[in-house]
Parts: sequence; C-alpha cells; structure tokens
Amino acid sequence: MSAKSINVALIGSKFMGRAHSNAYITAPKFFDLPLHPVMHTVVGRNAKELEAFARRWGWERCSTDWKAVVRDPEIGLVDIGVPNDTHREMAIGALEAGKHVACEKPLADTLDNARAMVQAAKKAKKSKTMVWFNYRRCPAVSLARQIVREGRLGRIFHMRFFYLQDWAGPDTPLLWRFQGKVAGSGSLGDLCAHSIDTARFVTGDEFVQIIGATMETFVKERALLAGGSGGEISGTGAAKAAKKGKSTVDDATLFLARTRGGALASFEATRLSTGNKNGNRFEIHGENGALRFNFERMPELEWYDATLPKHLQGWSTINVSDGAAGHPYAHAWWPVAHAIGYEHSFINQVADMMGLLAGKEIIAPLPDFNEAYQTQRIMEAVTLSAKNRCPVDLSEVK
Amino acid sequence: MSAKSINVALIGSKFMGRAHSNAYITAPKFFDLPLHPVMHTVVGRNAKELEAFARRWGWERCSTDWKAVVRDPEIGLVDIGVPNDTHREMAIGALEAGKHVACEKPLADTLDNARAMVQAAKKAKKSKTMVWFNYRRCPAVSLARQIVREGRLGRIFHMRFFYLQDWAGPDTPLLWRFQGKVAGSGSLGDLCAHSIDTARFVTGDEFVQIIGATMETFVKERALLAGGSGGEISGTGAAKAAKKGKSTVDDATLFLARTRGGALASFEATRLSTGNKNGNRFEIHGENGALRFNFERMPELEWYDATLPKHLQGWSTINVSDGAAGHPYAHAWWPVAHAIGYEHSFINQVADMMGLLAGKEIIAPLPDFNEAYQTQRIMEAVTLSAKNRCPVDLSEVK
Amino acid sequence: MSAKSINVALIGSKFMGRAHSNAYITAPKFFDLPLHPVMHTVVGRNAKELEAFARRWGWERCSTDWKAVVRDPEIGLVDIGVPNDTHREMAIGALEAGKHVACEKPLADTLDNARAMVQAAKKAKKSKTMVWFNYRRCPAVSLARQIVREGRLGRIFHMRFFYLQDWAGPDTPLLWRFQGKVAGSGSLGDLCAHSIDTARFVTGDEFVQIIGATMETFVKERALLAGGSGGEISGTGAAKAAKKGKSTVDDATLFLARTRGGALASFEATRLSTGNKNGNRFEIHGENGALRFNFERMPELEWYDATLPKHLQGWSTINVSDGAAGHPYAHAWWPVAHAIGYEHSFINQVADMMGLLAGKEIIAPLPDFNEAYQTQRIMEAVTLSAKNRCPVDLSEVK
Amino acid sequence: MSAKSINVALIGSKFMGRAHSNAYITAPKFFDLPLHPVMHTVVGRNAKELEAFARRWGWERCSTDWKAVVRDPEIGLVDIGVPNDTHREMAIGALEAGKHVACEKPLADTLDNARAMVQAAKKAKKSKTMVWFNYRRCPAVSLARQIVREGRLGRIFHMRFFYLQDWAGPDTPLLWRFQGKVAGSGSLGDLCAHSIDTARFVTGDEFVQIIGATMETFVKERALLAGGSGGEISGTGAAKAAKKGKSTVDDATLFLARTRGGALASFEATRLSTGNKNGNRFEIHGENGALRFNFERMPELEWYDATLPKHLQGWSTINVSDGAAGHPYAHAWWPVAHAIGYEHSFINQVADMMGLLAGKEIIAPLPDFNEAYQTQRIMEAVTLSAKNRCPVDLSEVK
Repeated sequence: MSAKSINVALIGSKFMGRAHSNAYITAPKFFDLPLHPVMHTVVGRNAKELEAFARRWGWERCSTDWKAVVRDPEIGLVDIGVPNDTHREMAIGALEAGKHVACEKPLADTLDNARAMVQAAKKAKKSKTMVWFNYRRCPAVSLARQIVREGRLGRIFHMRFFYLQDWAGPDTPLLWRFQGKVAGSGSLGDLCAHSIDTARFVTGDEFVQIIGATMETFVKERALLAGGSGGEISGTGAAKAAKKGKSTVDDATLFLARTRGGALASFEATRLSTGNKNGNRFEIHGENGALRFNFERMPELEWYDATLPKHLQGWSTINVSDGAAGHPYAHAWWPVAHAIGYEHSFINQVADMMGLLAGKEIIAPLPDFNEAYQTQRIMEAVTLSAKNRCPVDLSEVK
Repeated sequence: MSAKSINVALIGSKFMGRAHSNAYITAPKFFDLPLHPVMHTVVGRNAKELEAFARRWGWERCSTDWKAVVRDPEIGLVDIGVPNDTHREMAIGALEAGKHVACEKPLADTLDNARAMVQAAKKAKKSKTMVWFNYRRCPAVSLARQIVREGRLGRIFHMRFFYLQDWAGPDTPLLWRFQGKVAGSGSLGDLCAHSIDTARFVTGDEFVQIIGATMETFVKERALLAGGSGGEISGTGAAKAAKKGKSTVDDATLFLARTRGGALASFEATRLSTGNKNGNRFEIHGENGALRFNFERMPELEWYDATLPKHLQGWSTINVSDGAAGHPYAHAWWPVAHAIGYEHSFINQVADMMGLLAGKEIIAPLPDFNEAYQTQRIMEAVTLSAKNRCPVDLSEVK
Repeated sequence: MSAKSINVALIGSKFMGRAHSNAYITAPKFFDLPLHPVMHTVVGRNAKELEAFARRWGWERCSTDWKAVVRDPEIGLVDIGVPNDTHREMAIGALEAGKHVACEKPLADTLDNARAMVQAAKKAKKSKTMVWFNYRRCPAVSLARQIVREGRLGRIFHMRFFYLQDWAGPDTPLLWRFQGKVAGSGSLGDLCAHSIDTARFVTGDEFVQIIGATMETFVKERALLAGGSGGEISGTGAAKAAKKGKSTVDDATLFLARTRGGALASFEATRLSTGNKNGNRFEIHGENGALRFNFERMPELEWYDATLPKHLQGWSTINVSDGAAGHPYAHAWWPVAHAIGYEHSFINQVADMMGLLAGKEIIAPLPDFNEAYQTQRIMEAVTLSAKNRCPVDLSEVK
Repeated sequence: MSAKSINVALIGSKFMGRAHSNAYITAPKFFDLPLHPVMHTVVGRNAKELEAFARRWGWERCSTDWKAVVRDPEIGLVDIGVPNDTHREMAIGALEAGKHVACEKPLADTLDNARAMVQAAKKAKKSKTMVWFNYRRCPAVSLARQIVREGRLGRIFHMRFFYLQDWAGPDTPLLWRFQGKVAGSGSLGDLCAHSIDTARFVTGDEFVQIIGATMETFVKERALLAGGSGGEISGTGAAKAAKKGKSTVDDATLFLARTRGGALASFEATRLSTGNKNGNRFEIHGENGALRFNFERMPELEWYDATLPKHLQGWSTINVSDGAAGHPYAHAWWPVAHAIGYEHSFINQVADMMGLLAGKEIIAPLPDFNEAYQTQRIMEAVTLSAKNRCPVDLSEVK
C-alpha cells in the first residue's frame, strides 16, 4: 500500500453503499494508487443493520450521526450515497468542515439545492468535489470520448441518448424512487441524468435549447411497502394486495435538444420499456464517423469510420478491454476480453478520485459540483419544457 | 396466366419506375394471382429514354402524354411513380377517368393537395385507391402487426421509429429531393412518412398530439446538377466545383408524439446519420412484450415475450421467411432463410393490389388515399409544431 | 435488348428450375448484358405440369425429350437443373452436340461421373462449361475474395466453413434428397459442396489433406411420399402415417483438413442443427486480418483489420451493397442497404455467364467443370476418410 | 463473518494468484457463506515479490516453502494456482497432509500424473478435491446446463465447442505457456480443457470416440524472455531482437468426436484466430431446441425453442443476470443487466467451494479430481488421435 492514505466516511449502506464499499476495497488491489482510501466510517440510520454492513464490507466504524462524522477531523473524504433530498445538507456540511466530497448523482433533488451546493463548493477552496457519474468510467464510454477528441467524428449532426429499463411495471411497489419528495424526480434524475452527463462527457458539446419535452407517469398508483418509505430497486411483485399510494415521479422522460455545435439530440429515459434491462445507450453521428454504445454489451463500442476506403467501411465492434491497445482502464484489469462489469465503473472512479486528490493525472475527467450542476440545469430545462409545453433555452435556466 | 387481367399504365421511369416495373413482371411468377397485371403503357418525359426503358422492362407502349394515357379506355390501373408535386393532378385525372389508382408515397406534396385527392377518391365510387407504402409488406413488418393483433403486447407504453440514412453529406448535389417545390419536404416525406405509416400499420393506434418537433437543414447549399432539376438518389461527389443552389427541404425531422392508446412515441428521420444506410427501424414496448425491427436486417423481427417463464425471457430474433410457419408472404418465395430483398416489398404489394382489385382477401391491408391522408395530417402537424415551436393536437389539422 | 442473343434450354422445373428461370428473366433488366439469354425451351418429365411452368415463367417451348433438345441446333446453352444422377449423361450429351453447358452443383453424383464430364468438356473445345455454385455471387462472398486478393489477410492460419440447416427432422419424409441413388450424397453434396467451393474461391488456397471425417445418418428411416420418388425441399410433416423407407444419405458431414498454404480447416454440413435455417457460414483468420460471413445475414461481411491502430481494432460489419463503393454486383441493384436476396445470386450468375460467353471480363470467376471437379475430389476424399477412418491425402484422389 | 471459517493457503501469485485472491476477498461480501475463507498464507518463489503481493491482496503470511505450508496444521484448504507440471506433487502432498485441495485446470500435465492425483484423492477420504474450471460458473453457462436438465433440448445431434484467442502471433515471446515441460500442452490444456469440461457439464453427455484430431504449432520458434522461463499471458512485442527458442506446444487443437448420446461434436482451440480475443464459444443443437454461448458476450445465452408456435420461433438472447428470474448466481450480484465479469466466475466458485466444504447444496456441481480426470482422458485421446492419425476410442484410454 502507498505511504499516503485518506480516511473515507461513506453515508449510505444500500445499493450505492455496496457499490462504493466494493470500489474502495478493490481499487487498491488492481491499481497502483498514489493515495490509499481507508474505510474509516460508514453512516446509516439503522444501527443494527449498519453494524452488519460494516462488518461485511470492512468499515472500521459505524455511525448514525452523519453530522458528527462529517466534522470528524480524522475524515478526509465524505462520500454521499443516499437519496437526492439529503445531498444538499450533507454536502454543504462536509464542505464547511473542510472535507473533500464525493456525491452520488444527480447532484441534488432541485436546481436550487444544486446551486447552493456549487456555491458551498466554491467557498471551500481546499475541498475537491466529485460526482458519481460512474458510466463515464466504463472503458467503452471513455474510449468514445477519446475518439471524439482525436477528431475522428468531425462535425456532429445527430446524437441519440436512451436509458431504457423495464422494472417499473404496475406490480412494482411504491419504492422511494417513486416518491418525488425523496427522489426529486424519477426517470429524469435516476436515468436521464446519466445520459445527459455522458453526452456532455463524450462529445464535449453543450446543450443550448430544449426543443420539446414530455415526462409521463404511466402507472399513477403503486402498492405501499410494509415499512412505508424505503425499499430498493429490486423489488417486484409481492405487495399486490396492499394499500396503494400515488407515484409522484416520471416513469419516462423524452426530449429533443439542440447543441452549441449545431447537433440535434434526442433523449429518452424510461423504466417501462419491456425487454430493456439496463439499456444505457447512445448513438452519435458526425461528418466523418459515428459511435454507438449500449451498456447491455458493456465492453463493446461500435465505431464507424467514414474515412476508410469505401468498400471496407462498416460498423466496427471494438472490445474495449485491451491494455496493450491503451484502452482506458484496461491496463489494471484482466487480459483482453476477460470482461469487467458494472461494479468496475465504480472501482475505476475510486482510482481516479484518489489520483485527483493526489494531484496526479487521471484517465477521464471527474465531474465536480459545478460540472454536475450544468447537467442539473439541463434537467431543469427539460422539466420546464415538459410542464410549460414550449421550448426552453438553457440561457433562461441559471 | 389467369383468365382475368388488368392493363396498367405506369407514370415514371426512374427509381420507382424500375421498382414497380420489376414488381409487375415478377409478382405473377411467384404468386397465383386472381388478376394479371398487363404492362400496357409507361409514361415519361423523355421519349427516347422512355423507349429504352419500355424495351428493357417489357412495357408494350410508351407515352409522354400522361393526360391521354389516364383517359385511355384500355387502361384499368394508373400507377403514379413520380415526384410528389404531380401526384394531385395525375391522381385526380385518373380517378375522374374512372381508373384505379396506385400512388407513390407520400400521398401529396401538401395537405391541401392530399385532401383534394381524398375527395376525388370519394367521388370516384368505382375506383380503388392504393398508396405505395411498400415497407408494410416486408414480411417482418407484417408479422409485427400480426403479433400486435394477436394481443401479445398488451398496453403499449413506448414506440421509437427511426429512418436513418447518410447519403446527404455536403458533397451530395442538389437533386430533386432537396427541392421543396418538387418534393414537398425532405426527410419528412421521403423517410418519416414511411415510419408514420408503419407505426399506424403495426400498432393500429392513432396519434393525437405532436408534443414537440424540429426540422433541420444542416447543409444549406448544394452543388447544382448539370441538367438543373433532376437526378436520382445515388449521385454523390462529382459536382463539387459547380454553382450552388439552396436546399429548401429538411435534412432531418425529429418529433415526439402521444397516441390515443396512451403511448409515447419518438420519431427521427434523417439523411445525415453517418453509418446508417437504410436504417428504417422501430422499437415498440408493451406491457407483455416488445418488438424491434431494422430494415438493414430485413428478414429479422426481434420479439420479447414477457409472458414466458422468467429465466427464459430474451430478445428473440425471428427469421421471417418460413412459409411453413405461416410467415406473411413467405409461401410465395424460397425456402426459409433464403432471403428476399427490398424489391420484394413492391412485388408483394402488386400481389396484394391484384388481390384487392379482384375482391379477394389480402395478406396485409393496403392503405387507400384516405388512410394515407391520415399520415399526411400527421406530417402537417409535425411541420406546424416545428415551425410554431409548440405542441399541435391532431384534431387541429383537418 | 442487346443485338446478340443466345437461346437457352433449361432442364428442370422444380426449385432450381424456378431460380434459374427467374434469373434469365431478371438479369437483362438490371444488367447491361453483352449477350441476351433467350428463354427458348424448358425440359421436364411431366408434360402438363411443364406447360404450366413454361407459361408462367415465359419459356417459349416445352419438351420432355432432353436428348432431342440438347441436339436442337437453335440452342446455344444447355442449363442442367435436375438431380445429380443425371448430370453426366445430360452434360456429355450437350457437350457432344457442341453446346455450352451450365450445370447445377455438385458437378456429379460420383467422382467417376464427374471425371467423365471433365474429359468431355476438354474434348468440346468450342464449348464453355459453368457450374452453379451460386453463393460465389453473393456480394459479401465476392468481397471476401477481393479482400483476400488485396493481401489484407496475410498468411491464413484457420478457416471454418459451416453449412447449417435444420429442416431434416424425423418428420421430414423420404424426399429425393435422402435417396443416395438420386442425390449421390446428402449434406455433403447438397450443402458442403457449396462450402468447399466457397473456401477455394475466397482463399485461393487448395486442400491437400483430409485429417479426419465423419458422415452421419441420424434419421435412418423416413416416411415414403405418395408418389414415391420425388418431392422438394419444403415438405415437412404430413406423411407421418405412411410406410417408411431407408434414408441412404448423410444427414451431416464433418471434416478437418489442411491446405497447401498451411491453414487448418474445419467443415461441417448438416440438415439437423435446430435453429439454423440456411446458415452458410465461414470464418477465416489470417495473420493481418480476418473475415466472417453468414448467409442468414446475406448483405453483411464481417472484417477484422489487425493493421489498424490497436485501440480502434474491431469486427467491422460491412453492408456489401454500395455501388458507389464498388461492392461486387451492387452497381446493378438498388441504393445501398436496399437489400437483395437469395435469388440475386443466380441473377448475378446469369450476368456473369453472359459476360463469359461474350468474351467479356466478369465480376467473379465462374467455375468450369474442371474447377468443380476439384471440389468433387475433395468430397471424395472426405467420403473415403469417413469410410476408412483415416486421413486421406488429396494426391491419392485422382 | 460467519462463525465458521477455514484457513486457505494459495500457491501461486501470478494471473491465477490474483484471480483467486480477489475471489476469496469478494465472495464473502456478496454471498452469505456458510464457511468463511481466511486468507492465511500465500506461497511463491520470489520472497520479495511475494511479500508485496501478500500486502496488496491481504494474505496474512507468505512462504516460499510450499511443502511446509501444505503440512501446516492451521491450513484447511490448499489452492494450487501454478503451472501444470507442479500440480501432482503439490496436490498429493496436500492430500497426504489431510487438506482439502482446489487445483487449477487442467488437472495435470500428463495423464499419468492426473491418475496419480485421483488415486491420492481416493485415499484421502476426509479431503475434498475441486478443480478450477471457472467457466462453469458463468451464469449463462450454468443456465445452459439447467435448460438441458429441464429436458428442453431433447436428443442432441450436434455440438460445437470453440475456444478462440489471438494473442500468440509470431511476435509473442516464449512464455511458459509455450514450453511443453511446464505447460504439458498449449491450446489443448490451456483452452480446450475448458471447452471439454463445459461440454460435459452442460450436456451431461460423455465422449466415446475421437474421430480425428490435429494439433498444430504454427509458430515454431519464439523469442526468449530475459529471465528465461517465465512470463505471463499479456506480453506481446518487446522481445523481438532476442535469441529464439523452440515452442514445444500446440498453438491450435482441432478434433471431431462422438458422444454416448449419439451426438457429433467438433472442437477447436487456438491462440491464432485473429480477431477473437477470448472466444470461449459453444453451440448445441437438440431435437427440440438449441443453445449458443460466446464468452465475449458473457451475460448472454442464446436459446432457440423449437416447441414454440412456429411463427414465433427464433434465437432468443437471454441476459442471464436476473436474480428475480432465478438466474444462477444472479441473486448475489447487482440488478439485472448490471454486468458482472470474468473475475466473478472465480468468486462464484469460491462461494460454491465454501458451500461444498460446509456440506450445503451448491448452485452448480464442482468438478473433483476424478471428474477432471475424465476431461484429461479426453485430452489424452485427442493427443493420441493427432499423433497416430487415427480414431481413438475413449475406452482405450484408462
């Protein structure tokens, strides 16, 4: 292990709690980190469950008092992996205590809260902020960005970004993800936020106008869970008989947009597209080439090179896992085509986070709060466009 | 050959002229037709070229005077395969002369002209009208419709219809397809019209609102062709040096829509999506199943059956070419997976047209002028929505 | 039509009879042929059925006397499209009468008969011979050969050639294709012959040794058909109750081989690989590149270029249908990705046959009897290897 | 952590050393194990490197003396992750000391050694033996087996098992994997052993005859590495200038075989199939259904159900990652289609190993030494068949 280390406090012990914990454990095994993350404290609400979680995942301490933890002088990095309505308070608390902060996406539940977080980040001059847009660190997504930056696409005409899942049928109960007060939004913040971030990350372009948008709640009522407020993504079925409550988030979000570079973009995020399980997809068409990605085939990037001899042009499927080829992150993992998975996007992020905090060059840029706020502005513009049934210029959304 | 026959006059001798001629020749070879199409007269503007065309394709006579031909008492069916600005005059002329009319899509260059054609069709009580939305008769598209009608999808949540080509880069000259006066529109009428028809055909649903739309001309000026007004789809390059003229049509059309059945729909048609050659694609997601199609893999329909045992659920790729399985049109062709191609959608249409005119049951419904007019109304609503930057209800477009 | 023409006599009016007839009709429509095939006489056994066939397909005359027809001085080209046991007699008859001969594949039912045909062809100095290995003329297969000839693969290490169908389950009756006396062999001559020819065509390499082989009859007895001897490929089911007869051909053939160039080759042909409908597939791996093809996706050739920058290497799917790109045969057909199908491999062959007979350069070489005989020698070596359970050097098979 | 635990000694600290270490760390995080693996001692040759390895991966102790370690009374499980020539000595040593043994595949370098290991295992009545055929525990491979056991394929006609890589071009140096004395064999033991095990695992069928076989060394000489004897899989290039040594293993192995159940099987393993990176593939065709797998798309199992209504039959791509669907191992991991990777096959194996040692039911059977010996017998028969150029019955290989 490296001489230097940083103590991490993780807030959250559910889906993201597991993903982040696994990443802190595994990153130092596969990467030569300049800074070692020490799994110092995990924070949760249920002390007993939390203790079991800490034991399993190797956190040294547990706490149910996040306010105390973010002020603990031993802690260097606060990692926020809980629902969106708590991001503001926790992040600002940590920043005011001088900590670095890594926050789950989307940045916040509302644009106001996101803005407040950005302002706090600006004030906290010694703190670095990072947001867990983990899909940036899928090797194929990072390679897509690299290909754009190598100038291989030329002027971009079209992009399509879809995030298609199907777990939210009428039988799925009223998890927190369907509760507007907790989640802020549904498909928009949960899925489309990833797509918007990926679009900006890969193309380097900015959105200037939402042309039209819609946000739909197909399933208006869902069965209440026993406990009431919680539940994770997995649960289907079961709760059929129970009382019902109102779903107050969007099951699906669609919008059309225009970029500064002159491209037309189409976005769709939905939890009701039967047959698509985790279809985080994109297609980008430039004058000289094109790219396609679908997370359901995570290692593969499709690349069309319109500058090749015409009789040889085709969609090429690159297995982005070859360390010897310089594929992003591949040097740290297994031989070519010995696949890595979903969790590795988090592990790669921990590696880059440690690099960033150690002042080293990292593989793909990490979005800070301000960068994530730009994505939040677009989410706000989409919401306004859907509500007011009109185009919205991004310049109107501060 | 069957005892009964009908004399056909074809107007047009370019791309569609070849496709229709080939269909009249070939349909009677593979299908047992109740009515035999006799290739009586072909009509064009250039007498010399036309004569060569007629000789090659087996038309008995040529004419440069379409008005005379549509009144020729020997003619039973007038087939209009020329650009959209002439459809109205020719179709009404033929209907007034008591002929059956098969018209290329889209129905007309403008909604007014389309409406006039519908009215003429209503008056011409003995005439049947048909429109060449040929993609309906791809076996995979017909099977998609059949699967929907078998009730296998349940309530539809989402549909995506894309028609993606890439031949219209900056080097492509100013063909008639880029001239608004001739073509009426660009990607909208050329490509998206197919998608709209296919959506209505497959789902049986109707569009009630355009939520938002945009139509973009990426390449504003293009090289003038030597002759001036014409040219076919193929030409790229060449004319670089020449003078330039304005492109007055949309290179791309995107819109979001809502259906009577409560689905959200996303459409995109473009001639500038590098790497997609003839990507007439759709994806439809219902409560119990889903469908995917891409004409670039013409024989294949992808079908997801969410009612199967869960551990066996997946996207199934059906090779829609099995006569013994009852796949649409397959009985007429080769053994299973001995592929048919683009031209067969036209041949299949001739078979159905002859069936319809003979009063027989046909494999897939043929759109008449009124049916094609519904598609034209949607095109109009899209145009209005794009121009006025607001949602448009279909009820506003008469 | 061209000034010059040649009168064709076609022997056969079943599956291949239709494919060839359609090709003679259509080739002159899409290609500018230097020699026009006139559909002069069709020959069959059943006069009444034959007359209907001739009327439908446009043959000027019918005959049940092939011996007379091949001697008819009006005939220039004799096309043999009947089962393999008759090839020898008919081909030699036609050659002795000074005709050009196009014979269906495989060349003959036995190696002896094939050899006799080659000798007759040598004697008939003014006659050209051609064999209908139609898959050579799939554009993707022709492009594969071109890529090899451009030197893009380098030394070839491996090739895999599979021809996988599944129509011969236990319920399929005893068609002529299961009768050794008529067919000569089963999967070997019907399917594997295509693969062997394609391997030699694409790579330009020659087989020098069969390392091991097996030929299996999984279904030993099959229901007799009403008529007794005939039937076409399509028939499944039906005849269950009926009496059974012995299948005397191989349902499947597998072998390993070695080429002069030092490659290892694996071949499999079967009519019992459930789920594969017409899976005429190959994969070829060279030092600098690799190729994959599957007729079930006819327009697509997969190409791996190991000389590209490493981070961009992948399997590229070329849609081999772009006339402007110089893809083989594409200039004659529709715009790019407006698919052609199975029958077009025959139409393309007629175009090349007319070119050859007119002394013009053609797109892909046509196999003459001697060339087809080399394939027959390999089939014989495979048969010997399977029977004697030992390796067989091709030099042992004369 | 669970009350019960077992101390593990791992021999090996290279590629497999990392894969096994990661598995011991991670399995207890995601699975509720009935027995906890304690990472007690790691064994290697280079003390200094080993210490760094132990620190990174969390092994409590290091040793360069495997003989002492396998006798250490604290150790319960000896895990052998070093090249094949040492398996015998180490495994027998550990068994004689009363330990459980998990050995990397293939079981041994020679059949004699493998047999000795089986005999030792029989004597060591309290010891359990396990072999790391990790691909069994890819969820898609386990599901394939389950589908066969559910009776969905019926009688199997054909199977094809390929393991295709391309890293062993002429520039790859003389790693230990090319040294017969160390590796025992090349592609046969390294790759094909996996295929043979998978074939037996998935189908439950046994091989009775090798019909024909070949083993080829395409690249006869390779550059010597600096150190001389070692090196891992990754290295390409570099050593070009250096002295050369003889490669004494097979670059490729191909064989045809026959099973007790009457199926014909085709195997190919190669390190020289350009474009295939880790193409561990199979296709199995039964009377009622068929299966396809390619590790390059690890989560996907393709399934053809020939009992569905005919018009709906197709190749279905199952994303085998759905815990709610009961997909093997999926309950332990992320939500559906949040991919797992190569390393998870090892982690899943540790979970099953702990289950087995705790006397619990496990998800997929673990091969013991005797089971792995059956695979070794087939490898021997293949070697004999290739050498003697004749068929070999398995009954001849004891």
